[in-house]
Amino acid sequence: MSEKSLQHIDFSKVTITGGFWKKRQDLSRKITVKAVFDRFTETGRFAALNCDWTEGKPFQPHVYWDSDVAKWLEGAIYTWQKNPSDRLKKKIDKTIDTFLKNQTPEGYFNSHFQTQEQENRFKKMNDHELYCAGHWMEAAVAHYRATGDDRFINGLGRYVDYIIERFVEKKDTGFEVPGHEEIELALLKMYDATGDKKYLDLSLHFLNLRGVHPRALSEDHKHADLSHYAQNHAPVREQTEAVGHAVRAVYLYTAMADAAEKTGDETLKTACETLFRDITEKKMFISGSIGSSSKGEAFTVPYDLFNLVAYSETCASIGLIFFAQRMLKMSADSRYSDVIERALYNSVLTSTSLDGKSFYYENPQEVVPYLHTRDGGTSAIRWPKMLRSAVFSCSCCPPNIVRLIPALGDYICSTEGDTVYVHQYMQSEIDLGNGKMLNIDTKYPQNGKVTVTVKGGDCKLALRVPGWCTDHKYETVKGYTYLDAKDGQPITVDFPMKVRFFESRPEAVFNCGRCAVQRGPVLYCAEARDNGKNLRDLCIESRCRFKQGIHPELGVPTLTGKATRRVFEDETVLYREKSNARQKVDITLIPYYAMENRGEDEMLLWFQVK
Amino acid sequence: MSEKSLQHIDFSKVTITGGFWKKRQDLSRKITVKAVFDRFTETGRFAALNCDWTEGKPFQPHVYWDSDVAKWLEGAIYTWQKNPSDRLKKKIDKTIDTFLKNQTPEGYFNSHFQTQEQENRFKKMNDHELYCAGHWMEAAVAHYRATGDDRFINGLGRYVDYIIERFVEKKDTGFEVPGHEEIELALLKMYDATGDKKYLDLSLHFLNLRGVHPRALSEDHKHADLSHYAQNHAPVREQTEAVGHAVRAVYLYTAMADAAEKTGDETLKTACETLFRDITEKKMFISGSIGSSSKGEAFTVPYDLFNLVAYSETCASIGLIFFAQRMLKMSADSRYSDVIERALYNSVLTSTSLDGKSFYYENPQEVVPYLHTRDGGTSAIRWPKMLRSAVFSCSCCPPNIVRLIPALGDYICSTEGDTVYVHQYMQSEIDLGNGKMLNIDTKYPQNGKVTVTVKGGDCKLALRVPGWCTDHKYETVKGYTYLDAKDGQPITVDFPMKVRFFESRPEAVFNCGRCAVQRGPVLYCAEARDNGKNLRDLCIESRCRFKQGIHPELGVPTLTGKATRRVFEDETVLYREKSNARQKVDITLIPYYAMENRGEDEMLLWFQVK
Repeated sequence: MSEKSLQHIDFSKVTITGGFWKKRQDLSRKITVKAVFDRFTETGRFAALNCDWTEGKPFQPHVYWDSDVAKWLEGAIYTWQKNPSDRLKKKIDKTIDTFLKNQTPEGYFNSHFQTQEQENRFKKMNDHELYCAGHWMEAAVAHYRATGDDRFINGLGRYVDYIIERFVEKKDTGFEVPGHEEIELALLKMYDATGDKKYLDLSLHFLNLRGVHPRALSEDHKHADLSHYAQNHAPVREQTEAVGHAVRAVYLYTAMADAAEKTGDETLKTACETLFRDITEKKMFISGSIGSSSKGEAFTVPYDLFNLVAYSETCASIGLIFFAQRMLKMSADSRYSDVIERALYNSVLTSTSLDGKSFYYENPQEVVPYLHTRDGGTSAIRWPKMLRSAVFSCSCCPPNIVRLIPALGDYICSTEGDTVYVHQYMQSEIDLGNGKMLNIDTKYPQNGKVTVTVKGGDCKLALRVPGWCTDHKYETVKGYTYLDAKDGQPITVDFPMKVRFFESRPEAVFNCGRCAVQRGPVLYCAEARDNGKNLRDLCIESRCRFKQGIHPELGVPTLTGKATRRVFEDETVLYREKSNARQKVDITLIPYYAMENRGEDEMLLWFQVK
Repeated sequence: MSEKSLQHIDFSKVTITGGFWKKRQDLSRKITVKAVFDRFTETGRFAALNCDWTEGKPFQPHVYWDSDVAKWLEGAIYTWQKNPSDRLKKKIDKTIDTFLKNQTPEGYFNSHFQTQEQENRFKKMNDHELYCAGHWMEAAVAHYRATGDDRFINGLGRYVDYIIERFVEKKDTGFEVPGHEEIELALLKMYDATGDKKYLDLSLHFLNLRGVHPRALSEDHKHADLSHYAQNHAPVREQTEAVGHAVRAVYLYTAMADAAEKTGDETLKTACETLFRDITEKKMFISGSIGSSSKGEAFTVPYDLFNLVAYSETCASIGLIFFAQRMLKMSADSRYSDVIERALYNSVLTSTSLDGKSFYYENPQEVVPYLHTRDGGTSAIRWPKMLRSAVFSCSCCPPNIVRLIPALGDYICSTEGDTVYVHQYMQSEIDLGNGKMLNIDTKYPQNGKVTVTVKGGDCKLALRVPGWCTDHKYETVKGYTYLDAKDGQPITVDFPMKVRFFESRPEAVFNCGRCAVQRGPVLYCAEARDNGKNLRDLCIESRCRFKQGIHPELGVPTLTGKATRRVFEDETVLYREKSNARQKVDITLIPYYAMENRGEDEMLLWFQVK
């Protein structure tokens, strides 16, 4: 391996043919895509694209509504691309037609500003115009790649020309860089799809200008610079700590990494590496969730991983996956692919209900219902919502899931010369090009056995040895084991998938003395419904044999092991001298992703273990 | 014993002659009384009594300033009473003279309303007028008892007449019951001191009216009723849960208990018992601190004992002591005297720095400096101040300490018939009246040996067996052991004072898997200065022998024992598979009351114990 770029294998070349993720893709296609479409229709988000809202009508378009629709559109295109359906195609076409019809002569489109604030176009840094534009570009790239039809992407090209005119040439806008980053990474996708350098240049323009004119230095700059909140506190190459709004941050870092890879900018790459380490070594929940605080939906100080009040927005985890994927292109290092796996099997899966219809915006890392006093209580703590919702007013997360799941093939493979990297283990067929096919046969994460077969020629294989697997027999370089694969000869690897206990470093005070339980990449949690109240008092016997089963209500895997809990009979005693009176109990764990699917319940991820 | 009232032995009959508390009383007399006086002088609180502040002058009198001065005055009188000093007497006299000179012809006094809101007298429920009046009454009772001079108490009598005229007769005020309770308990002290039933009646008037006219039922009532915040949500006899502002709550409950005792009102007594249990069985930190939340300085839901963000105001603990003391008069039950002990040795002592000059308003139950992001950070949590302050804008707590410490003799003894109850073990001489003296000889809490000698006659002794002492040999009834004492013959009891570990019930989630360390009544904590960072990772070996010592910097007792902490060498790893690599370390504990006396530091009360 070298530090040369890995070539991405696009999900269009990948078919997930069975197993764990096929089920999730089917659920997304059959249920989620439509559920989100219906909710967005009901809340007027599609109608808003007509840009004919007037005072007094219902469903006043919000500044970020376009992005919700654009993300749904992108996901719908991916879904249709892998499983064509006329019905879905009609929805896609209608959405695109409406967009194109309502673009202004300059190419501008924003259903909020066109109906409510014509005079404020590009005046308000925090009002998401460029963020929405970016999401339209991502949808347009998806559409162009899926269909070859260039009407939509050309429409976005005209929008970009207009943005260049205003932000780069005339400089008559109210702010210099986007308040909510996203367009930077979208422009790089436009560049990839078209080869037109203007997209790369505009992306670099925004990246290079960020943090250069903090408010204090720029008297003539009337508008808020948003500073740390929008990572506008320092030039991007000088940023060393993940700060501010977590989604904005990881979208920015994704663009930075992509730009570093495309331009060979080592300083930018180093900044990305530093930021990635800051997140994953100090600010990431074990589920792969990031952004600890509801205040500013933000990163906070290192090791502030207070499970009970974690904000951990779904979009931030998805953004972390994007960031890791870009980093992986620059360096075949399993630190990146491990994070993708961690987030996919835990935070991302958890965000959606098992029926595919409702979603977390904030993903709980622990739930103690009897402490929750969300409305009107005197708790100084803002307790997160315990259950997923079908509808949100701020609905960025559901369509982010809609676009992630059908494109999961994006994360499985890449190539570098004649080496084929396998990052994620999903049952799949991959077209490597030049008549070569790769077959991945696995029941992962049910077990750790993976059989990889290349057909149509020999190749080198680089298989990720998952970070959770500490007892494997493979020689690794940066987490990958390198093997020679002969045409048609299956290669089987096996990663022992026993129940493992993970601990966090001592600075992460909320987890001290506690362990998370993982089997393969899947975190397991306990709910009171299965185990009785006061889960934190349970102490798992680490040497017990866990029995695997299927949960009768939830249909998900279970692990049943041995634990103890204190005998504490006197109802009137708050404090007593330490007693050794403990009773033995069974503890039944379910995958974290299955939590809170039976109504509000106590839920724990970090256990006492003996 | 019976359920007849215990007769209180006033601190004026008690001399603390040596030992632990004598030192604290000396510190209070020599340092704290003057320190608080100086801070109050510097901040204009004494000058405010002249009621001549006008717009543009510095030190604009706040609605609660009078109460700060009145509490200081009460404490200064107690201090002078036990240790007469001309200098202190002059300050006392001047304060009283200024008050009397500036009372209005109606008897009203309030330095805020007289200078700034004449028109709003008794119009604003939450603006502390009656609270301040109550504190003046407590000071006046103290002065009358200490000197026999009735000028001051008569001045307050005129104030009460005016309050009766306005609140009971004319009913032309903007609210019916005090927004911040306090006057109810003060009126009962006025009744005790004068025997005049008008004080009892007014106290009962306020108590009986509280919660009777919640806003929803009273259209004609324009002003906020403050509802739960000021315990005005239900008639007091129907209140079953401690709610709202914790200081207001315990001041109210103190008055309720005192009134129940004075009137024999069994329903009121039952309500008090229920509320006391609710606090001490569900809402009290192990230090005796109460009021978990900074939002509303309030009680929250049961078991919300999140140490890291505890509000736990000093005044609330002091109020809990008052409440417990009134309950103890009605029932010789060590549940009450144990709570007094818990709060005295822990929350109350902790609130003041070892040098007697600075104070906590909020008392930390745990400190992790690297999580604190108090100012401008993105943490959604409001982290408490780590260090004590010499000056507060809201300065209720320091003078509450000033009045508590010199009157500690109030908590030692009471009598019922010929039985002498000893509740707290302090080296002291007590005048039981009728020529009888009680001598308590003890080094408590250094050790648990207490020798009690009655002189001038025989008596029955009822000695509290401390709740922390679970391995004593005494027969107890409601926590007291009953003995016959012969004139001049010492009786010695001994409560084994080994290091003990206490745990909280499983619902108190933040303490699950952790123990507090106590020796006698004194909680011990660890600071990072003595033990290195990441205290939560330490695991104490419960069977180790603790060595006692004296802390070289702090001069307080230390306990040095054995513990382990994890070996976690890789700086770049946030999560790893559970390792059993632990290193043995010494752990040095100091009394909780000595914490944070060397600058901001990590501090822990709840330890992993093996």
